[in-house]
Amino acid sequence: MNKHEPMGRKLDLRNGRVDLSHGSGGRAMARLIADVFHAAFDNDWLRAGNDQAAFDIAAGRMVMTTDGYVVSPLFFPGGDIGKLSVHGTINDIAMAGARPLHMSASFIIEEGFPLADLCRIAQSMGEASRAAGVPIITGDTKVVERGKADGVFVSTACVGVAPAGLELSGDKARPGDTILLSGSIGDHGVAVMSKRENLSFETEVLSDTAALHELVAVMVEAAGPAIRLMRDPTRGGLAATLNEIAHQSKVGAHVEESAIPVAPQVAAACELLGLDPLFVANEGKLVAVVAAEAADSLLAVMRAHPLGRGSARIGEIVADEHGFVQMTTRFGGGRIVDWLSGEQLPRIC
Amino acid sequence: MNKHEPMGRKLDLRNGRVDLSHGSGGRAMARLIADVFHAAFDNDWLRAGNDQAAFDIAAGRMVMTTDGYVVSPLFFPGGDIGKLSVHGTINDIAMAGARPLHMSASFIIEEGFPLADLCRIAQSMGEASRAAGVPIITGDTKVVERGKADGVFVSTACVGVAPAGLELSGDKARPGDTILLSGSIGDHGVAVMSKRENLSFETEVLSDTAALHELVAVMVEAAGPAIRLMRDPTRGGLAATLNEIAHQSKVGAHVEESAIPVAPQVAAACELLGLDPLFVANEGKLVAVVAAEAADSLLAVMRAHPLGRGSARIGEIVADEHGFVQMTTRFGGGRIVDWLSGEQLPRIC
Repeated sequence: MNKHEPMGRKLDLRNGRVDLSHGSGGRAMARLIADVFHAAFDNDWLRAGNDQAAFDIAAGRMVMTTDGYVVSPLFFPGGDIGKLSVHGTINDIAMAGARPLHMSASFIIEEGFPLADLCRIAQSMGEASRAAGVPIITGDTKVVERGKADGVFVSTACVGVAPAGLELSGDKARPGDTILLSGSIGDHGVAVMSKRENLSFETEVLSDTAALHELVAVMVEAAGPAIRLMRDPTRGGLAATLNEIAHQSKVGAHVEESAIPVAPQVAAACELLGLDPLFVANEGKLVAVVAAEAADSLLAVMRAHPLGRGSARIGEIVADEHGFVQMTTRFGGGRIVDWLSGEQLPRIC
Repeated sequence: MNKHEPMGRKLDLRNGRVDLSHGSGGRAMARLIADVFHAAFDNDWLRAGNDQAAFDIAAGRMVMTTDGYVVSPLFFPGGDIGKLSVHGTINDIAMAGARPLHMSASFIIEEGFPLADLCRIAQSMGEASRAAGVPIITGDTKVVERGKADGVFVSTACVGVAPAGLELSGDKARPGDTILLSGSIGDHGVAVMSKRENLSFETEVLSDTAALHELVAVMVEAAGPAIRLMRDPTRGGLAATLNEIAHQSKVGAHVEESAIPVAPQVAAACELLGLDPLFVANEGKLVAVVAAEAADSLLAVMRAHPLGRGSARIGEIVADEHGFVQMTTRFGGGRIVDWLSGEQLPRIC
């Protein structure tokens, strides 16, 4: 063996399994990282083989975020944990109006996990990161004993740059502002739940997992500081997001049920599963709170983007010292939309 | 209940346990994050309650890293998973000669995990991050079902800035360079293993977990570009680090066993546990490869720093097309120090 290629035994990527030696810091780990992760993520930062990666940056405002992913099952209609871990973390950067630059990825893998599945996840992450233009430049791999994790968990972090003069924050909503939503809700949660429960529908519901930074870029260009804040309604769904905004900004919100898009097959699945789409996670949608006078033009810009085609004006911010989110129902009645209480959908992301 | 404080029921931080609702995106999660993590990490970025955090930065070279922590047991002599997850990730930034700025933390928690232990870990992280001057500015919390994880896993990421003109990298070692080590080896691995195996020694071995960025700062100031590279010998120990350097730089290394500091109680524990200290993880030590003419003065600078008091010159880089790491033993014989093969110490960090 040439010591300048100090890799462990060639991996059987088709039938092999992860074992504890793949997390040991020795040859087997070097091989796993090279054959699975470097191959899939494919960039010179990783190939340099250092424990960190460097990049040049202009002066400005930087944004940082992290998210852990424990979705079960790992593969679901429209996506998988790898794609989700790239899109979701990019979206947290994008919600600050920022441009994502670089990502890191930390893997915690259960002993016995099939290498073929790990490759599939890594390749999906690599594709998503290339499509988004956000390379995964550094990472880490740990292996725990069988029964001490559940397949694989992924934690990603991302850094980005915010445009000068734009500071979006959850506390900036003001009474009279318009609430826009970039498309239909509930798709991701229903896709995961129907796979988990082995349900099949006439029309398969696909996760909406998507990186929203390009949609955000055109929105910021068009409306700039007229945008008060953006947020992606993931865990806890649209209901949690609206309540978070009301809480942070010390305002209320008023939405129209009939204005909130829900795909017919998602509505049907929610009924079957006993779920309320308002509480179901999304992974490719955003809520924007915007000054009323800028709402029409911003809505047009959103609808012109492939990821915002289904955008809608769903309501407005109101003064309310109690911070209630109120909804006018389809039948004209009123309803308070509270936070989710308890655990509706565990491990949805 | 005041809706502007939309927290779930008050947590019983003494006797309570984490349940799935704490990962749901609802009130219970908001409460957990506020009472456990915001309380412990204590900074305005977190309290702002956004899914990302922003900070201003000057133009320059930025460094990013991530690490996952799965150490078992979670609490061990001299440290715990929280402290480790702050120090280890700071050290990966420091090994680039960079100054760490900000961290993120992602928690994956097993249902049923005691809240008191989670608080203890969070407080330990908060203390370590304040002591290091590296605030944890953003984070994420997921909860998985009982039996699907092992207590808690933590993934941290860190960004930092590298001084202009300094590019340390594993491929920069050259024949004739001197290899310096900042202190005795094996302490962390032995501390964890002795706790895991319920061993007790006359003198308890404590983990060496420490943030090395201040030691690195004085080294960089003193020797600047005479430093070729630095690396912290964690998983796989000093043996893995030397082999990585030899591999990346396409050189060999020659070290003197008698020059490598090992504390007597660590040597004794290794003998008892059947471990070779060369392969045992460290969490507060660094290896520096430095131009020979700068070695003496750099060694003096290292020894003058509290975390480098035990620094030693342990060998030199040699030309070797096979990339061997060779050691002259205490008895004058020769030995090849290979990578660790297989898994010596699972879940050591």
